Amino acid sequence: MTRKIEELYSKSTASMRHSFIRQILKVTKGVPGMISFAGGLPSPDTFPKALLADLFAEVIREEGDEVLQYGASDGDKVFKEVIKDFEEVPYLSDEELMITVGSTNAIYYFTRTLVDPGDIVVCEAPGFPGSLAAMEACGARMIGVEMDDLGMIPERLRQVLRKLTDTREPVKFIYVIPEFQNPTGKTMDLERRRQIIEVAMEFDLPILEDQPYRELRYSGKRIITLWELARTEFNDPKRVTIAKSFSKILGPGLRLGFAAGPPEIIGPMVKWAQKTTVSPDCATQRVTARFIEKGLMKEHISRIIEHYRPKRDAMLKALERYMPDGVTWTVPEGGMFIWVSLKEGVDTDKLFERAIEHQVAFIPGSKFYPHGMEKKNEMRLNFSYPGLDSIDEGIRRLAALLP
Amino acid sequence: MTRKIEELYSKSTASMRHSFIRQILKVTKGVPGMISFAGGLPSPDTFPKALLADLFAEVIREEGDEVLQYGASDGDKVFKEVIKDFEEVPYLSDEELMITVGSTNAIYYFTRTLVDPGDIVVCEAPGFPGSLAAMEACGARMIGVEMDDLGMIPERLRQVLRKLTDTREPVKFIYVIPEFQNPTGKTMDLERRRQIIEVAMEFDLPILEDQPYRELRYSGKRIITLWELARTEFNDPKRVTIAKSFSKILGPGLRLGFAAGPPEIIGPMVKWAQKTTVSPDCATQRVTARFIEKGLMKEHISRIIEHYRPKRDAMLKALERYMPDGVTWTVPEGGMFIWVSLKEGVDTDKLFERAIEHQVAFIPGSKFYPHGMEKKNEMRLNFSYPGLDSIDEGIRRLAALLP
Repeated sequence: MTRKIEELYSKSTASMRHSFIRQILKVTKGVPGMISFAGGLPSPDTFPKALLADLFAEVIREEGDEVLQYGASDGDKVFKEVIKDFEEVPYLSDEELMITVGSTNAIYYFTRTLVDPGDIVVCEAPGFPGSLAAMEACGARMIGVEMDDLGMIPERLRQVLRKLTDTREPVKFIYVIPEFQNPTGKTMDLERRRQIIEVAMEFDLPILEDQPYRELRYSGKRIITLWELARTEFNDPKRVTIAKSFSKILGPGLRLGFAAGPPEIIGPMVKWAQKTTVSPDCATQRVTARFIEKGLMKEHISRIIEHYRPKRDAMLKALERYMPDGVTWTVPEGGMFIWVSLKEGVDTDKLFERAIEHQVAFIPGSKFYPHGMEKKNEMRLNFSYPGLDSIDEGIRRLAALLP
Repeated sequence: MTRKIEELYSKSTASMRHSFIRQILKVTKGVPGMISFAGGLPSPDTFPKALLADLFAEVIREEGDEVLQYGASDGDKVFKEVIKDFEEVPYLSDEELMITVGSTNAIYYFTRTLVDPGDIVVCEAPGFPGSLAAMEACGARMIGVEMDDLGMIPERLRQVLRKLTDTREPVKFIYVIPEFQNPTGKTMDLERRRQIIEVAMEFDLPILEDQPYRELRYSGKRIITLWELARTEFNDPKRVTIAKSFSKILGPGLRLGFAAGPPEIIGPMVKWAQKTTVSPDCATQRVTARFIEKGLMKEHISRIIEHYRPKRDAMLKALERYMPDGVTWTVPEGGMFIWVSLKEGVDTDKLFERAIEHQVAFIPGSKFYPHGMEKKNEMRLNFSYPGLDSIDEGIRRLAALLP
């Protein structure tokens, strides 16, 4: 090439932001003695290796002609039936459900379906950078809404939407993680879910409900999803599209998730899938279907919960024990993360450098905000990946660095 | 929802074309007695089921902690090394190679990297609708270039590019399938490859070389890829990005392919992958790596070739036997397709309806042209999927319908 290839880049490629979190994870990975609360990985101890090994062999031997062949872009028919059964939504039509290459893939297709460059997506602040990056790649401008202990604040959402509507900004949808949110660990209670749906109805906007952690509840009671709530209580079945993932209950390497929503949304998402991946891995879909059909999933999820609950409790206990006055944190009922707020004036981006020197890692809170909304005195701690034995010592190291 | 969800669609979603080929395949699938030359599927008889079943069990048992965990967006390091070795490009850096969810996925990311809505991609006419649709979804305007027996005609390519350059149209890249092209089965000889590279150099445009069928050669001699030719003979290593697939040599259900090209292209493609799928299935990558490492691939490919060659030969023989004067067809040295040209004035879109009534199916040639360039008297015949025994009878039925 004579000219620089960069001159040929599309606008969206040229404006793609660098992922700071990926850089942080590189810095912390494999450093001897490092206790890392930075990542967002499930623990490999929760992977059902022996069961999956047997099922892969079985499925490919018995159904290889089918599962090694091209599959449907909306996902394997058998797997879809199994999901409907497992999720207890037998009334769902095939046009309302698609399998995706993990749930980020569902979020990407959903955004592609609705968002032109410059369109607005309203999300939680702080929010999950993986989703925010996928949406921004489609050209979305992310507008964050303030949260309280129960997640996105309905009155703030209303104010934001009113302002955007008054100036005729093209708002396309509302994005929420209502349970054990990444990064805060916060969960919307039933009333909060109702209120968020009501605001969405008021402005007639669709909601994308991201539920990757739903099965990982360690305490408290299971709450109905926004997706089901809109259908049942509000008689508004097309309002919410839900994305779920098998990454946290089987293994993220398998790249399987699904989206359920109105045919007007799922239909175009499937068309995007045709053009982007053709389909998810067909053998892996059938294996996961069989894992559920054999009744292995519920028991397996119980085991994961028993694995993670002590880790969460150990981290909460260590925070109580070591953290100086003025530091607060969330008490998540599930998921993988605790959100810590330090005293005003503490800058966790700077603290990160010192923490690394003292062999403990976290993600600075600023990395979770839409551009321009960053707050400085917060951090995300992951408790799913570090060893149970290392949690107390890691929090001790971290607390020792605080004023 | 009160308003119609369709009102919220992005422009690219709203303008997405319907896939006629998918409709055709639905019409022909599972009809008793139907002999279908319409699909583009590999034969399940070529899937190495027993070997893959064992390898999946082995890999997940031995390396489950790793392959069930999140993997790198550019692909598994082990698999990348194996590919470099298998493709005999040990000098390739990790920044020049990425694994994708099949090769359509590579084509999508490549296009996303370079194309803004309205940008132009120059391609073969007729060309592969799957790629054309992926590119159009990114907003590309497809401009087709006429072909002769050796594929895209360099002088025609030059004329097209000159005209586009004169009017300052934003041309982003040239897309070719140089071997056993879909749909024509045509192969560029060495000289033709050189000429295409020369024209690309003249206009300083990148080439995307799609090579899904390269390993399936039944006769004639293997020819150097444009990708290697540009590196070696033209000392222009960043000119060509190549996409290859495991769909035709292992099984398309596994959704694995790869792209190799300059870091300036592969880098952004990996960023698109982060946001779209995170990574391909990690277990499947490691299984495929092991399949190759164990030396099983070369022998397996030989078996596939021995399976397909008789099918190709049977179809060519039947065409000779039954087709009326004035009908011509390509003699592909590999791949899956034969391209048949009927007398001027015959409309294969209409012929299709009658063929279905007589229980034989094909894809009308018009479906393979960029919008507005359609020709009517051609058809694509697939010989990889139908049973060897049914090919003669299918061609007989088809020929009987011709004037």
